[in-house]
Amino acid sequence: MDRILIGVDVGGTSVKTGMFSREGRLIAKTEIPTDRENNCKNVIRDIAQNIHAMAEKYDISEENVIGTGIGVPGPVLKDGYVEVCVNLGWRDKYPAKELAGFFPGMRVELGNDANVAAFGEAWQGGAKGYANVVLLTLGTGVGGGVILDNHILNGRHGLAGELGHIHIRDEEKEFCNCGGQGCLEQVSSATGIVREAKRMLLKNSAPSAMRDFGDRLTAKDVCDCGKAGDRTADETMETVCRYLGLAISYATMTVDPDVFVIGGGVSAAGEYLIGKIMKYYDRYTTISKNHAKIVTAKLGNDAGIYGAARMVLE
Amino acid sequence: MDRILIGVDVGGTSVKTGMFSREGRLIAKTEIPTDRENNCKNVIRDIAQNIHAMAEKYDISEENVIGTGIGVPGPVLKDGYVEVCVNLGWRDKYPAKELAGFFPGMRVELGNDANVAAFGEAWQGGAKGYANVVLLTLGTGVGGGVILDNHILNGRHGLAGELGHIHIRDEEKEFCNCGGQGCLEQVSSATGIVREAKRMLLKNSAPSAMRDFGDRLTAKDVCDCGKAGDRTADETMETVCRYLGLAISYATMTVDPDVFVIGGGVSAAGEYLIGKIMKYYDRYTTISKNHAKIVTAKLGNDAGIYGAARMVLE
Repeated sequence: MDRILIGVDVGGTSVKTGMFSREGRLIAKTEIPTDRENNCKNVIRDIAQNIHAMAEKYDISEENVIGTGIGVPGPVLKDGYVEVCVNLGWRDKYPAKELAGFFPGMRVELGNDANVAAFGEAWQGGAKGYANVVLLTLGTGVGGGVILDNHILNGRHGLAGELGHIHIRDEEKEFCNCGGQGCLEQVSSATGIVREAKRMLLKNSAPSAMRDFGDRLTAKDVCDCGKAGDRTADETMETVCRYLGLAISYATMTVDPDVFVIGGGVSAAGEYLIGKIMKYYDRYTTISKNHAKIVTAKLGNDAGIYGAARMVLE
Repeated sequence: MDRILIGVDVGGTSVKTGMFSREGRLIAKTEIPTDRENNCKNVIRDIAQNIHAMAEKYDISEENVIGTGIGVPGPVLKDGYVEVCVNLGWRDKYPAKELAGFFPGMRVELGNDANVAAFGEAWQGGAKGYANVVLLTLGTGVGGGVILDNHILNGRHGLAGELGHIHIRDEEKEFCNCGGQGCLEQVSSATGIVREAKRMLLKNSAPSAMRDFGDRLTAKDVCDCGKAGDRTADETMETVCRYLGLAISYATMTVDPDVFVIGGGVSAAGEYLIGKIMKYYDRYTTISKNHAKIVTAKLGNDAGIYGAARMVLE
């Protein structure tokens, strides 16, 4: 029996677990609901039970497990300390140590979910083969992760890769979840795209296919309308991508990675999105003609389990 | 005889050379004019001759030299390749290999001057004792360097740390040296501060002590007037520091270092400058209460020779 890696992605709704070969082939995966009772205090126990069950089902003895990695939705400090995970209600916790308690001798690694997803995309996804990668995930928010020299960069306070919260718009009056005003996330997340489109629609009464969607308008609708030539939708996406291009230029002039990966639901817009981002990235990175590549993510919702498993190979 | 490190800082005007103990004590330094003939083709030979002369004067045998580091004013790729050094007229060169040709068996390392200065400040300067450091040098331009885990970060195309060229002002009409419009350097370098102050003075006819300086106004004058309560000068410095605070917040949400170091001539303004930068850094970094420290550089023009020598210990 070849030895395997386990990757766990803890979210507020579900906990995903994947078993991988050392080379990064996904052997099996499961998804269980997150037990939210008592500030998710049973989540680690549930992960342990799930791993036991999967090992039994796939006839894997625990000696064959190289280790387990866990991605959690909050900042992780270097020694694996989690001060707070807002989405789970966790406070003052060492989740890796807790899980290791269920598997004496097993290596357990911990990382922030966005950083871990970046590691997954660098290992087996859109940035496979690159050692220096910055991921931006355009979903409900804008998540980010930085991989340098094949390692996750956490930063002193766990803030490395938090590119969703760079300030890019002075005139913004609404507040971001982080408490700031004018964060990238407020414009370029799936939520931000819809908000931006609605603002554009309110500005004038020009005809737009987006008006037919009313309150059910999604980021996908905005992208689809834009692709189909709807002018207001396309202008919305120009704004969205201008700020993404700016953020990518900032990251270039800080860490200058090999490749940027755009993930999250919005990245399904593909070349329409990437082309616009690239245009502004080039415009704002005049210092050199050598720019990083920008690619779309490939692993979808599995990026987290891939990256979590990858941490064990560190 | 204890073993020594040699650090060389190659500039367009002069070449500085320092000899250091392994622990970072400066033993001796020299400064010779840069021979600009034939696109500075003799500079490496001059460095070699100067090292020979210093070694003789201080009675150091070449076996006692652990190695030599060189900082050069241009991007350096990983294998020590320099595509172009505009200030020197160098093209398509391997300066470290060239110097090593004069000292068979000696280790020679190469780095970009701003990155090397950051390494110097991290080793023996304002950030001594920290492994993760971002330096911003406010001089004729805005230089930058990123040190992560006690290593210089070069980036794929040598652009890591080029924070002087992030785009921060859409309405800028003048061009930056890099070809862009609205770079940080255009506002927050010594040159940029003067330009900004003059623009402020043109906006209205309010009395300002800065008017007395006419065309000889310097960044130091602007800071001094601001400190003394001159309103236009202080408003100028608010703008300058707002953009610096923004840049520092961007770097935080990318690499989240332990400490930021502000160097260059403008940093002589000390607490007046740092206090204003900190105010905007805090304003634009709402995602966490844990912010990096911001300190002033300590090594002045010697940062380059310190950092160059430090590279040999890598």
